[in-house]
Amino acid sequence: MGAGPEEVILLDHGSGGRATHRLIREIFLRAFSGESALLDAVSLEIKEDSLAFTTDSFVVDPIFFPGGDIGSLAVHGTVNDLAMAGAEPLYLSCGFILEEGLLIEDLRRVVTSMAEAAQRMGVKIVCGDTKVVPKGKGDRLYVNTSGLGRIVASPAPHPRRIQPKDEILISGTLGEHGLAVLAAREGLPLKGLQSDSAPVWPMVKALIEELGPALHALRDPTRGGLATTLNELAEEAGLSMVIEEDSLPISPAVRGGSEILGLDPLYLACEGRFVAVVESGAGKKALEILREFPEGRSARIIGRVQAKPSKPLVILRTQIGGERILPVLTGEPLPRIC
Amino acid sequence: MGAGPEEVILLDHGSGGRATHRLIREIFLRAFSGESALLDAVSLEIKEDSLAFTTDSFVVDPIFFPGGDIGSLAVHGTVNDLAMAGAEPLYLSCGFILEEGLLIEDLRRVVTSMAEAAQRMGVKIVCGDTKVVPKGKGDRLYVNTSGLGRIVASPAPHPRRIQPKDEILISGTLGEHGLAVLAAREGLPLKGLQSDSAPVWPMVKALIEELGPALHALRDPTRGGLATTLNELAEEAGLSMVIEEDSLPISPAVRGGSEILGLDPLYLACEGRFVAVVESGAGKKALEILREFPEGRSARIIGRVQAKPSKPLVILRTQIGGERILPVLTGEPLPRIC
Repeated sequence: MGAGPEEVILLDHGSGGRATHRLIREIFLRAFSGESALLDAVSLEIKEDSLAFTTDSFVVDPIFFPGGDIGSLAVHGTVNDLAMAGAEPLYLSCGFILEEGLLIEDLRRVVTSMAEAAQRMGVKIVCGDTKVVPKGKGDRLYVNTSGLGRIVASPAPHPRRIQPKDEILISGTLGEHGLAVLAAREGLPLKGLQSDSAPVWPMVKALIEELGPALHALRDPTRGGLATTLNELAEEAGLSMVIEEDSLPISPAVRGGSEILGLDPLYLACEGRFVAVVESGAGKKALEILREFPEGRSARIIGRVQAKPSKPLVILRTQIGGERILPVLTGEPLPRIC
Repeated sequence: MGAGPEEVILLDHGSGGRATHRLIREIFLRAFSGESALLDAVSLEIKEDSLAFTTDSFVVDPIFFPGGDIGSLAVHGTVNDLAMAGAEPLYLSCGFILEEGLLIEDLRRVVTSMAEAAQRMGVKIVCGDTKVVPKGKGDRLYVNTSGLGRIVASPAPHPRRIQPKDEILISGTLGEHGLAVLAAREGLPLKGLQSDSAPVWPMVKALIEELGPALHALRDPTRGGLATTLNELAEEAGLSMVIEEDSLPISPAVRGGSEILGLDPLYLACEGRFVAVVESGAGKKALEILREFPEGRSARIIGRVQAKPSKPLVILRTQIGGERILPVLTGEPLPRIC
């Protein structure tokens, strides 16, 4: 592994013997320096008694895409899941499934990207695991990250806290991640498009600190996009939502690219955005807080919560004054975007 | 999914939309009943301030084998990693990577097996994630389980606590898991052989409670088998170990089967056994404690720790009075046994 870029993963790297030890030492421990050995359980001293725990597997294809890669995506995805629970991210695990034949250089690039993403967030990658599957039983590499965080929001944001008249915000533009990955996979030259993959905890932390209990619910619109996420929130709250189409922040690159591909940006995944539902009257303040962050400059108030009609649903008020129901994503799947 | 056994996983089940929601509701939530929705982060109230955190991905082939399956194996594997840190297992996450075309009935069987294994241990599966990869990019299903436990041993067992003259025990017979999986994969009819996959926490708990600080170190001989595990412990302790060959508990089925296949039982994985290193003089008591458990009836004292010669190593004293060095597993890999 100290040798040239042509070295590849062999089945022996998953045997648990000398080759596995060497891989752990030379790739993982070197990148996640200062952390415990990546073997079995790690012991953590945590003073707080309210923890958030989450897990996510990443199978994105391709593993490198404009604006990110599977390594940083895994860290952001798990850190963001913790943030959505009102939790400060503290610790991550990483579990790799490597396909025989993977270039060690590619693994090194992914692991370095994970380490950098974790370091930027002050999160520690404390334990790990590596398995190897034969060629044709995987696709280069899959990674699972599980995360532990300290819940700092009190009360914690939760869909059950959503009330009629609450204001709904989105922290940034829609669909960049999903479209960038699809374009990279298909080799489509969509100019100016890159994934929005990023950690949202700094923005969420500011909302928690400055809004207090007026922050009712958070969720990140990943698979299924904004439309599916709003439906989940409406369903769990037992309420409806009305969204103003002309308030939705969509970049020209996503608007153009999704028209070409026949996709609806409301169903494209984001990996660095979140929906916040705040108390009626707190929307303007929330917007100001988000816009203080470079990554929150396109934040918008996009709609309001309503008492449910016959059943919870999400209604889009179109630019020409019509209304249409936005269902959960169905049909045509957009596979392997995270 | 309420329908016949011929239903299979489709890419749409990984889209994050309606099909994903239905899968979660009808397979996961039904099996892990009473637990939180398997979406994003879960909040946990933990009073203790010393936690163990671990992760493991499982890619075993075949997913069903004599004595177990990938679901119970994942629960046992992660629970055992926590036990090896002296921690009572509390919570698990589960992250599935499903191959398009997997029979939903097989998924249901695996998930049910996980739920039963968790319930037997009083462990809760609290959060999860599901991804789907296209046919030929996986192998039926892979699962990651990450675990959280409360460290109850004080001081916690750790290789650094190993001392010269310490006694070394094994909790049961060697190599059943590795050989049973290999035989199932290759369709070899090895009679009377089944995996030893099982949780070891009940035995470990008894050792912690009754031996106190005389319990120095624990490790489970999974990939790489007993020989590799002893080498890891010796290396981390900076000491050597001498093992008596005729003390090693090996069943006739494993002895016969590994002779036929040209394998050494000392390098075959166990998934329900552990090595305990205890203070000199505490071995007999430790043995009595282990033998009170049905799964500990074949427990043995297998050797002693020694001050290191020139470098840490593991020496096997053979039945005919010779000595040979037992190295870490190298060469011929035994892939996908966990």
